[in-house]
Amino acid sequence: MAQDNQAPIRIALLGAGTVGSQTARLIVEQREDLSQRIGRDIELVGVACLDPDEVTVPWIDRSLLTTDTAGLCTRADIVIELIGGLEPARTFVLRAIESGACVVTANKALLAKHGPEIYRAAEKRGVDIYFEAAVGGAIPIVRPLRESLVGDSVTSMLGIVNGTTNYILDEMTTKGLDFDVALKDAQDKGYAEADPTGDIEGHDAANKAAIMATLGFHTPVSIDDVTVEGITAITADDIAAATAEHKVVKLLAVVENGEEGVSARVYPALIDENHPLASVHGSFNAVFVHAEAADDLMFYGRGAGGAPTASAVVGDVVTEARHIAQGCVGPSIPLYRSLRKAPLDSSTAVFAVRFLIHDKPGVLAAIAQEFADHGISINGVNQDLKPTLHDPGYSGEIQQLRLVTHRCDEVTLRETVTAVCALDCVAGTPSILRVLD
Amino acid sequence: MAQDNQAPIRIALLGAGTVGSQTARLIVEQREDLSQRIGRDIELVGVACLDPDEVTVPWIDRSLLTTDTAGLCTRADIVIELIGGLEPARTFVLRAIESGACVVTANKALLAKHGPEIYRAAEKRGVDIYFEAAVGGAIPIVRPLRESLVGDSVTSMLGIVNGTTNYILDEMTTKGLDFDVALKDAQDKGYAEADPTGDIEGHDAANKAAIMATLGFHTPVSIDDVTVEGITAITADDIAAATAEHKVVKLLAVVENGEEGVSARVYPALIDENHPLASVHGSFNAVFVHAEAADDLMFYGRGAGGAPTASAVVGDVVTEARHIAQGCVGPSIPLYRSLRKAPLDSSTAVFAVRFLIHDKPGVLAAIAQEFADHGISINGVNQDLKPTLHDPGYSGEIQQLRLVTHRCDEVTLRETVTAVCALDCVAGTPSILRVLD
Repeated sequence: MAQDNQAPIRIALLGAGTVGSQTARLIVEQREDLSQRIGRDIELVGVACLDPDEVTVPWIDRSLLTTDTAGLCTRADIVIELIGGLEPARTFVLRAIESGACVVTANKALLAKHGPEIYRAAEKRGVDIYFEAAVGGAIPIVRPLRESLVGDSVTSMLGIVNGTTNYILDEMTTKGLDFDVALKDAQDKGYAEADPTGDIEGHDAANKAAIMATLGFHTPVSIDDVTVEGITAITADDIAAATAEHKVVKLLAVVENGEEGVSARVYPALIDENHPLASVHGSFNAVFVHAEAADDLMFYGRGAGGAPTASAVVGDVVTEARHIAQGCVGPSIPLYRSLRKAPLDSSTAVFAVRFLIHDKPGVLAAIAQEFADHGISINGVNQDLKPTLHDPGYSGEIQQLRLVTHRCDEVTLRETVTAVCALDCVAGTPSILRVLD
Repeated sequence: MAQDNQAPIRIALLGAGTVGSQTARLIVEQREDLSQRIGRDIELVGVACLDPDEVTVPWIDRSLLTTDTAGLCTRADIVIELIGGLEPARTFVLRAIESGACVVTANKALLAKHGPEIYRAAEKRGVDIYFEAAVGGAIPIVRPLRESLVGDSVTSMLGIVNGTTNYILDEMTTKGLDFDVALKDAQDKGYAEADPTGDIEGHDAANKAAIMATLGFHTPVSIDDVTVEGITAITADDIAAATAEHKVVKLLAVVENGEEGVSARVYPALIDENHPLASVHGSFNAVFVHAEAADDLMFYGRGAGGAPTASAVVGDVVTEARHIAQGCVGPSIPLYRSLRKAPLDSSTAVFAVRFLIHDKPGVLAAIAQEFADHGISINGVNQDLKPTLHDPGYSGEIQQLRLVTHRCDEVTLRETVTAVCALDCVAGTPSILRVLD
């Protein structure tokens, strides 16, 4: 089907790191197959990088390497942006669009912050923008949201979308490690970056939540709309308490289009060990989608890594190349709704709260009374000895009290916990975790 | 974004059964939203059915109903074929294409038999053919194969793609029912059709296997290329033996592009109870995909039902309507390869074989010797009493011998089992099941 009488479609690659070099490999090694699938030949015309001497993979011809990123953007039909971060990535993407190139990007931070600007620019210029790799790595989730579920009403999405935190929580669970030790271990093994802030504070997952909400609900949702809680406060005691109750701790991205409006949240939550998400380990990601007609769907696969991410990138390249071969552009991102954002204080959940308490009569009664006074109903209580803990100024034993509430609003819950902590009989800092219903 | 100065895109619906009426509901009730997502208005211009008096859902205007199916095909921009079966569906689909309409279909039997003919006709006429609902109901699996994974090399797919058999096997497992009783129960509850042959003999799953292999490997694979084994021979004893070994029985569709060529098979198999597919229950479907770069992916959701299937159908309608609004067509199905079909006798697997044997000295030795003589290595043996069974002409007790082999070729395995059954000490019919590695 490849038509030899037409010039090849020119592909430019910005960035030659892990994902970039794997993307180049697929394009170079599978060029003949890809051309057959497109119906026209393709050609890698340039690879922009900061230092050509650092690019040593054998499948990238050295003559393709350039440091003139802006120039490369203007001499390609498809520009693949794998630089990451906000700037200069945003400038290069807009320049590529302006010069009439279609864009493929895996840049979740860019899309979560400047997505609507970029989507509008692409629509106005009549070029494609595809970004399957920005959420869930190799997992097809963006395209199903843009196309497969476009005839349905998506009401909520829930997923594990950050492999680094998932790996750390796994290690804490299986080896009983504290957070700092598990993080160090993940860094040593290359599963966490030297500066792990973006992952462990939940910002990476929040970027993906913003993109998922924008696509699923057809309304602009920015990273600034996402409430974020990372995993840095999770302790070995939290994990042990979860295990004792046949639960696991997972960092979730949760987006909902409910009566209160659209919400996008990232938080660690307790999940029943039989829930399908509980068995998503290591760098694997999984996303649940609920839609009015389709009901429940789940997508699972590798959420990171050079080759898996490159698979998603090259799938997008082929899609855009097919459009170019046919002389048309794919669907724009129709953000035709301006849905209200749910008020931050409208968040409700089932909460698991863990207090350290003095072991003496009346303590449980006093705490239970605070919950009752705040109108929060308790669904389960568990108390056991924590003999290794000490409270300055108290000579008795310290016990651990675990409470699970019925669904309640978060503001009231936090007020209640503050009130409980003001009691003399409560020691240390309480732990508060959501429980997935 | 909807442009009022253009005529609406005309949609014709062929078939007003369960899926058809739900499809009409989504198109009618969500018309405004869908038009925004498309960028142009849409209009349902006709619903073809055998008997208009039987169509009573309130959202289908009675003036739209017609029995002139062929005529309706020629006055629409998009024709949705939900008639099912080979003829007259094939004739209507080809007529719609011939008259320049894009086609959406959920008809797996039609595509598994005549797919390449239809794909070529659509490509030649320059119209779209989409069929997300033909495999896995609401689950986006066709579009990911056509587009998301098109830059990668898919090597194998494995899935539970028939809800009726999955429900029956579930009931047999949880209630200890025999096949006939579970089937009758499924029919009474509407989960199995009055004539369940297509489901229980594996033909429905085989149609889906043919479509998956065709899309994944870019080579024509027809229903006639699929080897099929249904679940009618599965007994309560098979299920009990599986449960005893912490396994479940599932009907699998398995397609592979291996060294021997392309294979597509449907068979019941033993799966470890911890495998993700083991927890796919009832009418839910799940498909595993392995690709060279993406590694493992899983897609999960409702494989049948009116509303879920309609969700997939309307997603396809929106995709095609966007192409029409932009004056282009989507990707054709590039079957540019003519891959060799793997020889039927090249099938290898791990097998679990169950014999009924006389309880006397030397029996195990004799059977083990037959396996050794055929060069098949045994990985596990389990023998227990089945006191309720009797063998005419033998007054002793009957025992059940379960053997699990190492991976071996199927032809030799079946020869071995035949040789074992010729021994005097073996009673009844043996059970042979594949074990998922």
